[in-house]
Amino acid sequence: MYVSSHQAWERQLIIKPFVPLSMIGHFETFITAEVSLTKEELKLLCSLATEKKLRRRQLLLHEGEVCRFKAFVVKGLLRTYCTRDDGAEYNMRFAVENGWMLDTESYNSQLPSKYNIEALEDTEVLLWSRENMDKIFEAIPAFRSYSEKLKTSSHDANLNRILMNISYTAEEKYQEFVNSFPDVFRRIPLHMVASYLGVSRETLSRIRHAQLKRQKEF
Amino acid sequence: MYVSSHQAWERQLIIKPFVPLSMIGHFETFITAEVSLTKEELKLLCSLATEKKLRRRQLLLHEGEVCRFKAFVVKGLLRTYCTRDDGAEYNMRFAVENGWMLDTESYNSQLPSKYNIEALEDTEVLLWSRENMDKIFEAIPAFRSYSEKLKTSSHDANLNRILMNISYTAEEKYQEFVNSFPDVFRRIPLHMVASYLGVSRETLSRIRHAQLKRQKEF
Repeated sequence: MYVSSHQAWERQLIIKPFVPLSMIGHFETFITAEVSLTKEELKLLCSLATEKKLRRRQLLLHEGEVCRFKAFVVKGLLRTYCTRDDGAEYNMRFAVENGWMLDTESYNSQLPSKYNIEALEDTEVLLWSRENMDKIFEAIPAFRSYSEKLKTSSHDANLNRILMNISYTAEEKYQEFVNSFPDVFRRIPLHMVASYLGVSRETLSRIRHAQLKRQKEF
Repeated sequence: MYVSSHQAWERQLIIKPFVPLSMIGHFETFITAEVSLTKEELKLLCSLATEKKLRRRQLLLHEGEVCRFKAFVVKGLLRTYCTRDDGAEYNMRFAVENGWMLDTESYNSQLPSKYNIEALEDTEVLLWSRENMDKIFEAIPAFRSYSEKLKTSSHDANLNRILMNISYTAEEKYQEFVNSFPDVFRRIPLHMVASYLGVSRETLSRIRHAQLKRQKEF
């Protein structure tokens, strides 16, 4: 049966499957809600990004490499961690959708990183090289201000984490993590929470069991 | 006896007692070794500073106040600490001669601080209000860059402190403090080191005794 091109176009519209936003499309939606950008600025920002897909457990940065990028998480979950000589892993940060991830120390100094950045789920990221990011900061003052605000929040968050580290009980640390990062908490195993908090896995299991017991009694 | 003005000038040179550098003089010597400034820039920077002398145990900032200044320590020792409901104190930072001190979170947000800044010795500081510091950053790009470098180092140091908090043993934490801040270590009591590290006073005493015992045996 003959179908006119117009009919074919209509049918295509109707039967077209749901197409998820492209990685850049996702970023555009996110960033225009955060920063006021002209069309040209947005175009420049997006044109300098590189897309990367990572499988679960794949590394985005290896210990010993220089961190040459800032990463924006479109989908998935990243962690920054380091290992000690005995093989124990220590989690410094997690980033989920709409979060940024990099090793700032290595990125700024261009010296080898002591950290690994790993995908804990199949993950999609956009990457900007330092060179391109510097170009963007030069060309887009609003994006530079946004980045400076992020740095300030990150600095404050680090100080609060230090204060928690030195002053909170293990149970308070655990509760703070659950309250602050419910989305991360649901998606990672308990031993990774333990090594983020600097609390032993056994202590954290004990705390969780005690909490569950109290909830049942209540 | 008549003394010519020339002779008087010579005598003055000879018998003049040792006059320590003024607070501003001390700062000028320090800052010109750190940053390349024109005479006019140095003059502006110094003209906007306020001198303050603190007695031992006097507070420079009270919890609940807004931190409206950046302080430069000319002489003495400051600590930033907060107290929990049970009265326990937690030390976030120490600053000795040529160090800067402020509560960055309160300074940036202009919201009340949760910290106290206290002199642990008789202390002399120079203070710049945020308003004046902003004027200085605007007028002196070299000083702005210097300040940004300090921020970057401080950010890196905080991340390393977090990594130590979560991954070091109590003994490693203690040793790192002794090695990194020998000058502070000599000037503060052990319980203040303990509450900076998030280690109990008893644990730290035990570690120190064990170290002294090992040194004697060796």
